[in-house]
Formats: sequence, structure tokens, C-alpha cells
Amino acid sequence: MSLLGIGCIGLGRMGSIFTRHLSGRVPGAKLVAVADSAPGLAERTAAELGVPRWFEDYRELLAVPDVDAVVIATPASTHADVIAATAAAGRPIFCEKPLALTLLECDRAIQAVERAGVPCQIGFMRRFDAGYARAKRLIDEGRIGDPVTFKAVGRDPMMPRLDYARPEVSGGLIVDMATHDFDMARWLMGSQVTRVFTEGGTLVFDDLNSVGDFDNAIINLKFASGALGNVEVSRNAVYGYDIRTEVLGSQGAVMIGTLRQTPVLLLTREGGQHDVVTYIMERFGDAYLAEIRQFVDVVRGMPATGPTIYDGRSATEIALAATRSYRGGWPLTLPLEGGASI
Amino acid sequence: MSLLGIGCIGLGRMGSIFTRHLSGRVPGAKLVAVADSAPGLAERTAAELGVPRWFEDYRELLAVPDVDAVVIATPASTHADVIAATAAAGRPIFCEKPLALTLLECDRAIQAVERAGVPCQIGFMRRFDAGYARAKRLIDEGRIGDPVTFKAVGRDPMMPRLDYARPEVSGGLIVDMATHDFDMARWLMGSQVTRVFTEGGTLVFDDLNSVGDFDNAIINLKFASGALGNVEVSRNAVYGYDIRTEVLGSQGAVMIGTLRQTPVLLLTREGGQHDVVTYIMERFGDAYLAEIRQFVDVVRGMPATGPTIYDGRSATEIALAATRSYRGGWPLTLPLEGGASI
Amino acid sequence: MSLLGIGCIGLGRMGSIFTRHLSGRVPGAKLVAVADSAPGLAERTAAELGVPRWFEDYRELLAVPDVDAVVIATPASTHADVIAATAAAGRPIFCEKPLALTLLECDRAIQAVERAGVPCQIGFMRRFDAGYARAKRLIDEGRIGDPVTFKAVGRDPMMPRLDYARPEVSGGLIVDMATHDFDMARWLMGSQVTRVFTEGGTLVFDDLNSVGDFDNAIINLKFASGALGNVEVSRNAVYGYDIRTEVLGSQGAVMIGTLRQTPVLLLTREGGQHDVVTYIMERFGDAYLAEIRQFVDVVRGMPATGPTIYDGRSATEIALAATRSYRGGWPLTLPLEGGASI
Amino acid sequence: MSLLGIGCIGLGRMGSIFTRHLSGRVPGAKLVAVADSAPGLAERTAAELGVPRWFEDYRELLAVPDVDAVVIATPASTHADVIAATAAAGRPIFCEKPLALTLLECDRAIQAVERAGVPCQIGFMRRFDAGYARAKRLIDEGRIGDPVTFKAVGRDPMMPRLDYARPEVSGGLIVDMATHDFDMARWLMGSQVTRVFTEGGTLVFDDLNSVGDFDNAIINLKFASGALGNVEVSRNAVYGYDIRTEVLGSQGAVMIGTLRQTPVLLLTREGGQHDVVTYIMERFGDAYLAEIRQFVDVVRGMPATGPTIYDGRSATEIALAATRSYRGGWPLTLPLEGGASI
Repeated sequence: MSLLGIGCIGLGRMGSIFTRHLSGRVPGAKLVAVADSAPGLAERTAAELGVPRWFEDYRELLAVPDVDAVVIATPASTHADVIAATAAAGRPIFCEKPLALTLLECDRAIQAVERAGVPCQIGFMRRFDAGYARAKRLIDEGRIGDPVTFKAVGRDPMMPRLDYARPEVSGGLIVDMATHDFDMARWLMGSQVTRVFTEGGTLVFDDLNSVGDFDNAIINLKFASGALGNVEVSRNAVYGYDIRTEVLGSQGAVMIGTLRQTPVLLLTREGGQHDVVTYIMERFGDAYLAEIRQFVDVVRGMPATGPTIYDGRSATEIALAATRSYRGGWPLTLPLEGGASI
Repeated sequence: MSLLGIGCIGLGRMGSIFTRHLSGRVPGAKLVAVADSAPGLAERTAAELGVPRWFEDYRELLAVPDVDAVVIATPASTHADVIAATAAAGRPIFCEKPLALTLLECDRAIQAVERAGVPCQIGFMRRFDAGYARAKRLIDEGRIGDPVTFKAVGRDPMMPRLDYARPEVSGGLIVDMATHDFDMARWLMGSQVTRVFTEGGTLVFDDLNSVGDFDNAIINLKFASGALGNVEVSRNAVYGYDIRTEVLGSQGAVMIGTLRQTPVLLLTREGGQHDVVTYIMERFGDAYLAEIRQFVDVVRGMPATGPTIYDGRSATEIALAATRSYRGGWPLTLPLEGGASI
Repeated sequence: MSLLGIGCIGLGRMGSIFTRHLSGRVPGAKLVAVADSAPGLAERTAAELGVPRWFEDYRELLAVPDVDAVVIATPASTHADVIAATAAAGRPIFCEKPLALTLLECDRAIQAVERAGVPCQIGFMRRFDAGYARAKRLIDEGRIGDPVTFKAVGRDPMMPRLDYARPEVSGGLIVDMATHDFDMARWLMGSQVTRVFTEGGTLVFDDLNSVGDFDNAIINLKFASGALGNVEVSRNAVYGYDIRTEVLGSQGAVMIGTLRQTPVLLLTREGGQHDVVTYIMERFGDAYLAEIRQFVDVVRGMPATGPTIYDGRSATEIALAATRSYRGGWPLTLPLEGGASI
Repeated sequence: MSLLGIGCIGLGRMGSIFTRHLSGRVPGAKLVAVADSAPGLAERTAAELGVPRWFEDYRELLAVPDVDAVVIATPASTHADVIAATAAAGRPIFCEKPLALTLLECDRAIQAVERAGVPCQIGFMRRFDAGYARAKRLIDEGRIGDPVTFKAVGRDPMMPRLDYARPEVSGGLIVDMATHDFDMARWLMGSQVTRVFTEGGTLVFDDLNSVGDFDNAIINLKFASGALGNVEVSRNAVYGYDIRTEVLGSQGAVMIGTLRQTPVLLLTREGGQHDVVTYIMERFGDAYLAEIRQFVDVVRGMPATGPTIYDGRSATEIALAATRSYRGGWPLTLPLEGGASI
């Protein structure tokens, strides 16, 4: 069987991870084209990785015949447009999360994908992490009974660049970070979120105020099943990446997450000391690789089991509601009306 | 120096712990009288522990001259009355949490204590736990910078008896369980709570509905400092007592709690297995002892550093607001008006 | 039932722990007399704890009629004499480990106890620790199949006083520290030790050489069952008390031990940090109490299940052989000839 | 710069890992030829991985001009011959551990390598594991003072195939498994091993007796520095791969190892449960990749820092001495005479 030709649009932080994975670590696929609007970036990436074709305008990439499928890692605000164009070109789509920054854009992307009838997988890579996957399995097997409460902590160790933090670019704190947790909430609890209430604030990085973002939020969730939840996101966990999730059920609980990068304990007069997760790829590198492998498998005919474009919309919707709840000081009920934005 | 004579009023679950501690484990004190309105209970307790005086009516205990100080472990709904009578009798008071079930009662108790000028310590024993105390010290030393978010989980492994679960007896889920967490919130964060919002429900033990109680709640907190918080309480952690607290600061975080009773790991084909905390006294037995020791020290002249009657009122106030928020579906702002009840 | 009157002989470090436990924490018993040859020590202890009788000569204590049973915590080199006198006085005996420093002394003590027909329990308190007890239960239940290897680490955080370290006083490093581990080896493995080989040295505290002691030893064990073992003892774990044991079986393994005193984790830019066990009573305080409670129960008629004087002899025998192996550089086969000393 | 052409000799368990790594995950290198004497295996591997050249006779591989360097993963008993031929062909060598099964073979390989002047790296991949590397760094920085004791546990979850277990094929239990630990001992302690004493036995898998192997060993070590050590290897850790190492120093200790594969904790009425390391590649996969990357870097001109052929000889020598000590029941002093074998 010949190799599946992949084109990658967007070569920033996430794009550089996907292109490296696609250069030899994804069986059955090869990277055949890259595109990025930043002058010179696509050319440099192509040279470095030995990719035959490169473009500044992604629409040219979509016209290359041996681009069999497309990975999209452009800024979130452009996702809807790029998805629409890729779908119109008949190419299966893998798109980094979040799907989009408004429900209007989400629905535009969905419409294009439905019309074209192409697969569209969203980059909620935690579903492919061995830890989260094991937890899902344990829950599905009934090991904890009925899920009752969902708890998630998602903490990053540093302030993002201000131009990225702008809500119109990244969606702001909640859309940018908590969509991962909202996808886990829906996936692990097996139920939709019906109400959110957010407390938040700019508590450490005052500069974020200047672009309309903030650095900490604690979001209460209510599920259709009656279950409860809470998600905390923070930008100031100076000690490292701290990603933990737990589900309490009627017969037990499951907890996912680690605070250690290497299994080394140093014992001195100051006590016991271990390292922390200072590089997100140490924690989730395998999951980022696995999600692309699954995408390639799906395009080549395996049944799709990953997060869909509808999962992408749901996570964005919860994030928009949670952001609005923070701004308004009131609980919000879901679903939101169709055109909701931040 | 002669021994301080202690009278203990209320000989139920908590009372039996305090009386046992006072029978030989508290330097400088001796248990000289016990009282409980349940027929025969005081007499049996006195016989078992060798206590010289016992009563069914606690007012008789207050009249005994060698009762130098009083420990109150009666049902919460009676605390205000017993405190008022004890204060009127001029005796220093240690009262198990929660202080009372309404703000009216809290204020009546406060008034009586202020008028009598006696010390009044509330049984928030976590302040005396070596773990929480170490965390408090680390925060006060600035090791995590400014506190930014507070998280607490307080899970019990079983449904309470229905007659105890009634809100008019125990205060219901939040007053009964989360007052410990609210006291930790105020103590560790060094700030007052100004807003609460609760999601909750009866998700496992349907019988609780019949007495107006529920089994799970997730409570968002906002502090006067701008900091954020979340407290989860649950009655259905079938795996054991799960009491965990964490504070994220601008320069680090501190986490308190353990899920293991003994340091034993069993490794078999099924994986690694450890026990859990199935008896709350395994986790907090030393703290229950330490709080009584401190109370005795204070009565004998040491400066008071434990939780005061005002701390007791604040925890009750937050719990009342959180319970109302659950019933109403809206955030509530603190302080509540004076006469607030559940 | 009247209280059992206990006399305590030896009021040093261990004696002060036992006397405090016997002052109110041991149901059914009361401390009625104390003795120590150090001028003034018995008198001070008696005054502090309210003990009615005190002596410098322990033989006077043995003549007090209401001394129903005796706890011996004198230096190990005197154990045989004190046991013999106590047995001759017809009193049940609890003796701190090690039983004695030579096999001759061990056998003299055994003879006296057998002749008098009194119970004699040795202070191997780990058998009463909740962790070790749980491990023993798991092994006895067959959870790990047949025991195959035994591993123990016993590390102390500081150099002992030189006058204590002398082999003729404490028995030296191996007798002083590893007898606990040898008792665990025999108890958990359910088999006798038949061969030992020791590597050791004075690697950190050179002063120990001046009294003939050393600070580190690693001891290989062979059991009658064919199983293997290794015990490491060290005096220079500056980070705290580090007591760990593990048994590998044909169907699994069990590990006992903790490196943390409080369940607190501090997370900063330097990583995660927890405390260590800096006070042995934080780890084994409950076990020291439980062994005395069991002794009292046995004297009052409960069946004896704790370590016997024969267990005491076996641990000393292994320790003597291991010490000789270190000095000789050769493996030693057990049993040793009758009169063996260090 | 053109890619370094790698030939891989030996395509069994380890060879299949190396060839997969060399197919796209090692920057600067490409796999250009494979060889294995098993009929059809090289051909199948070449087809699967797209390798242009394949051979049954490795000497043909050595004659291919674009084979710039060679990875050897043949049975240990053939290492010396293959190394000698590869060195004679002037190719840089990476050879899986153990270097050889006799000192005579070790010395023959060393002579060939020295004569040819080619680099020769031995596959002690733990040196490239993030955990062990961090521990080495902490020790080198003086964080634990002077190393005093070394402890290692290396347990495998299953009996090897009998034809592999034969001492003349794999070297037997100690050579096969403990050479990793002996390399860590020398590397982390910074000192040579001067004496060994082994207790061992066939305690679980009786079939091993039929080929002259055994399943458990506990090996005492003495270092030239005076430091002490102990290594336990076992084939019957049915719960998974259990690889742990610790070094106690004069100022602290460092511990390396993990018993968990995913960071998931399941809590039920049976307690807390986590998985274990059931696939060695989950624990050391990155290290196996890193050692090959380093080898390629060295061939391309970077300074060599990995384990040398002399390190390979030292580990084999300790293993031979330890195996003999087990058979003889006596301590053995190192260095062994030149021609030592098992």
C-alpha cells in the first residue's frame, strides 16, 4: 500500500510538533507539503525535514494532488476558514483544538465538513494518552459505578505571550486551556454539560488585563445526568505543568495525573525532593503522536473513534459559556444560542 | 500545679473521643464530670472511665465546683444554648464544630461568651494536624508567594444515619462536612470569603431526599483578596475518607492529604495496591488530641492561638450561604444578613 | 478487675517512652514503681509521672508486692542479669531488644525464664506496627505466594554517642540496629536464617573506629527454606529515619515503609518537596504503645502472640554471626556454637 | 551533510527495537542493511522497514560500502566474533550488552577494536535514561556527599525461554540481567568493584535447573573506595518489571525507579490500585533511542561519553565473579585472572 501524503498547514508551536511526528514516526504516512503564511517559515521547515513542497498560501497546498489529507495547526481564529477550504478540496481533516472561537465559526466549519463528507478529527490528544485512556476504560467497565463528580486541574507554568493571550487570537484563558478539560469532562462522564459558573481573575500577571485576558479561573459544571464538576485553569503554576483529573463515582474513584517528570527522589537534610513536569511533551508527547497515527489510520479506512468536529464544538461552547459567566458573575445555562462568541 | 477539672457535655461519637483523650492523654487535666441527656449513657461512660460525677442534665454539671472548664460535644442544634449556659456559669468553653446552625444562634452564643469574658475554642481540629500546620507555616513563610487558588476535597465513605442527616439536626451536607474546609479556606488563604456558588445533588443515596439532605456538592468560592476557591464534599467515597487540600500561589503550591492508611504496597499480577483511610481517627486522631491539649493550656494561661468562636461563626455563615446557593441556583454574596439560617 | 501494677527498670531513652505510655495510655495497667541506677533519675521520673515508688537498685523494686509485672529497659549488657532476677522473683517480663550481647547471656536468661515459668516478651515492636502487621497478614493469606527474597533497609540519621556505640555496651552497629530487621526476616519469611555474609565499613563517622564500631553494613542472608535476603543498616542517613522492608514472593511482592512524616507536598521552581521521618516516634510510636498493651493483656490472661525470648535469642545469634562475618571477611553458617559473642 | 548508513546485525528482540528506532527516529542516520542468520528474518525485516540490503551472513553486510557503522544485537556468545570482524572492516561499533560471556572473549574484542581504532559503544542504555542521568548529575554535583552504599533491584516478570537461559547462550541470570546493575554501580559510585559474594537459588522456576540456570540472586559488593553495595536480580516478579536503584551518601541519598506505568489511581472498596510496568519499553524506550542517537553523533564527530568496551568488560567481569561466588559459596576478589569464564 502506498504512503498517505500529508499536508500540514500552520507551522508554529503545534505545527512543528506534528511535522516532526509526520517525518518518520507515523506508519503509513509521509509529509509531502507544508504551508505557513509567515515569510520563510514553510521553506525553512521543508528544508529541515526534507519535505518536497512548501507554500505561504495554504490554498496552493490544497491544490497539490498528492496531498491526501491535511493537518491544520494555524491560529484558532482561522480554523473555520481553513477547515472550510480543506473540506471543499475534499481532503480529510485533522484540526488542532479549539475548533473555533465562536459558535458561528464552529457551525460554518461543521457545515463545510458535512457537505464534503470528509472525516474531521479535533486535536483533543488526551483521549490518546495512556493514562486517560486507561481511566476511560476503567469507568466504562463500571469499576467506579456511576460517575458523580468530575474534577480537573490544568495549570501552565508561565504567562503566554500577550499577542497570543488576546481573546480574539487564542480565545483567552478558558477557551485556550480548559477546552481540553471540557472534552475530558464530556468523554469521561458520558454526559453533556448543562450549566456553568465561573469565578476568575487576574491575580498574578497584571499585564494580561491590557489585552483582556486573565490568569485564573475555577469553573463549576452541572451535567445533564445530574453529575457535578469543577475545572481549575491557571497560568501561574511556576513549578511546572500540572494536569490532573479525577472522577468520583458511586462505587469508587479514578485519578489521572502526575507531578513528576523522572522517577528520581533526592533525600537530603531539606527532605525529599523530586522534579516536576517542566516540558509538556514529557507528559503528552506520546499522545500527540498517537492522535496523528489514529488520524492516518482512519483516512486509510479504519473506523473513527477519536474526537469529532461535534466534540470540538461542544468544548468551545462550554468554554464560551464559562468565559461569559466569569464576565457576568452569573451561572449560564447550555446550550447557548447559535451565534455565541466570547 | 493542680490538675484542671474538665466536664464533658455530650457523649456521642465526638464526645466519646474527647472523654477518652481526657482520660490520661492530656497533661494537666483530668475528666471530673460527664453529662448526656440519653438515659444511662453518662453513667456508663463515667463507670468505664472512672469519672467521679455524671449527669443527664448538663446544667447540673455546670454547678459542680471542680469543673474548671467544659468540653461541648452535643448535637449542633443545641450548641448555642449549651454555650450560653456554660458561659453564664463562667467556665471556659471548647465546643465541637459547627458552632451552630443559624447565624442567630451563632450571635447568641457570641454574645454570651463576650459577656462572660471566657475563652471559647471551636473544634476545627485540622489546624492542629501536623500536615495542615506545616502547610500553614510554609504559606506564612512565603514559600508559595501570594495565595491564588484554594481547593479542597472532603469525602466521607458512607451515608449518615437519616435522623442525623436532617438539616435541622446536623445542618445537612454542607454545614456538617464543609465547615472544616471553609475554616481551612479562611485560615490558609488569610482572607474572607465574599461569594459562593454551589452545584449539588442527591446522586447516590436517594433516601437523603426524604429528610431534605443531599450527598454531593461542589462549591465555588471568591475571596476578599480576589483569590478563588472550590470545595467538594461528598458522602459516597466508598473507598474511604478522602480529605485533601491544596493552595496554589504566585510562586508555588502546597498540597495536603493522603490516601493511604499504612505504608504498605502489595504488588501482584493485578498491579500495585495500597490501603485507604478507612478510619478517620487514623488520619486525624493526633489532631483531635492536640486541640484539647491546646484548650487546656489556654485555660491554664497560655496565649490562645486556636480557632475562636468568630471563626466558628464565619464557617457557619459560608456554609449557610453555600447551602442556599444550591437550593436557589444562584451565587450568594457574603456577609449574609444577621438572621440567616439554612 | 483491679489494675495490673507495672514496675519499670531502666529509665533512659526507651524507658522514658515506656513509662510515659504506662502513665495513662495502657488500659488495665498502672505504673507503680520505677528504678534506675543513675543517681536521682528514678526519683525525678517518679515525681514527674506521679509514680508512688522509686529505686536506684532494681532488686528493691522486685521486692515490692504490688509490682505485678516488669518492663526492662536497661542497657543490653545487663539484660540477662535483670531478666534472671525478675524471673526468680516470679514476675512476667517485657524486655527491650536486643535480648543480650552474647549467646551465653541469652541462654542464661532463657534458663531463668523457663525455670520460673513466667512470660517473657521481647521489644520487637515492628510486629505491632500497622504496616508490618498488614504485610504479615497479606503474606500469611498467600497473596504473594511463597516468599523468595527479603530486603530491609534500616537507616538512622545520626552517629550514636561513642560510649553507647561500644560493642560491649550496645553490641555495635549490627546488634544494635539490625536485630529489628532480623526479627522481621524470620517473622515475615517464616524460616530460619542459616548463613550470613557481611560487607561493612566505617565510611562516614571515623570516630566510631576508636570504640571498635562502624557505620555501614550490608548483610546477605540465606534461609532454611532456600530463600535469600539482604539487610542494610547505616548510621548516616542524614535525611531522617529510613526503615523499609520488602518481600518478593512467587506470586507478588509486598513493600513496607514510608519516607514521609506528614502528607504535605510543596511545589516550587525547585520541584516537589516533602518532609522525611525525623522522629522515630512519628513512625513507630503507636507500635511501642501496642506492644506494651499486648504484654499487659498477656499477663492478664490473653494468649501470647508477640515475640518470645527465643525470638530474641535468634535475632541476637544472626547479629553476632553477621558482625563476625564482617570482621572475618567470610560467610558464616548458623547455628553458632553455644557460647558465641561478638 | 549526508546521512550515516547503519547496518544492523542480529534482528531478534533487541535488534527489532534498534531497527525500528533507526527507521526514522535517529536524526542523521538511515538503516541501509540488515543481517540475521535465521532463514528469512533479514529479508522480512528489510521488506517491512524498507531497508535496501539484507543478508543471512553478516560478513556480507560488512562488505557493503555504504554501511558506515554497525549495530550488533546478536546472541552474546557471538559478540566477540562479530565485533572482531566489524572492527577489522573498519566500522564503528555499537554492541548490545553484555560484551561477552568470558573474559577471554572480552579481551579478544578489545584487542580487535584497539587495533582498528574504531569507536565501540556498549548498550548500557540506563546511562541514557532521564532518571538515571539526573541521579548521576545530582551525585556529581555533590548533593549526597560521598557515595557510601549502592542498592539495586532488577526484577523481570517472567521466566526466559530455556534455550535462552542456558549460561552458554545468555550467560545465565547474573550475566544476563545484573550487568546493567553492575554498570550503574560503577558509574554512579565512581569506583571499581573489588569483591563480590552471592546468595542464589532456583526458587520458583524449577525448569531452569535443567539448563544450569537459576532464578534469584542477591549479590553483595565491595568497592575500591570502601563503599558497599547489593544487587538483587530475580526472574519471578510476576507483577511487572521492577528496576530500582539507590545510592546513600554521607549527605543524603538518591533513589531511581518507578513501579507505575501510567499515572492512574483507581480507588475502590478494595483500596487504591495502580498499574505496574508491564512493558520494559514503557520504562526505557526513550533510553534505547537515546543511546543509538548518541552513537550516531559520536560516529559523526561528537565526543564519546557513553559506555565503552572497557565498561563492557568490567560489567562482565563482576557478573562472572558473582556467578562463581554463587556456585562456590565464597566471596571472590576482583580482578579475576585473565581467562575467567562462568
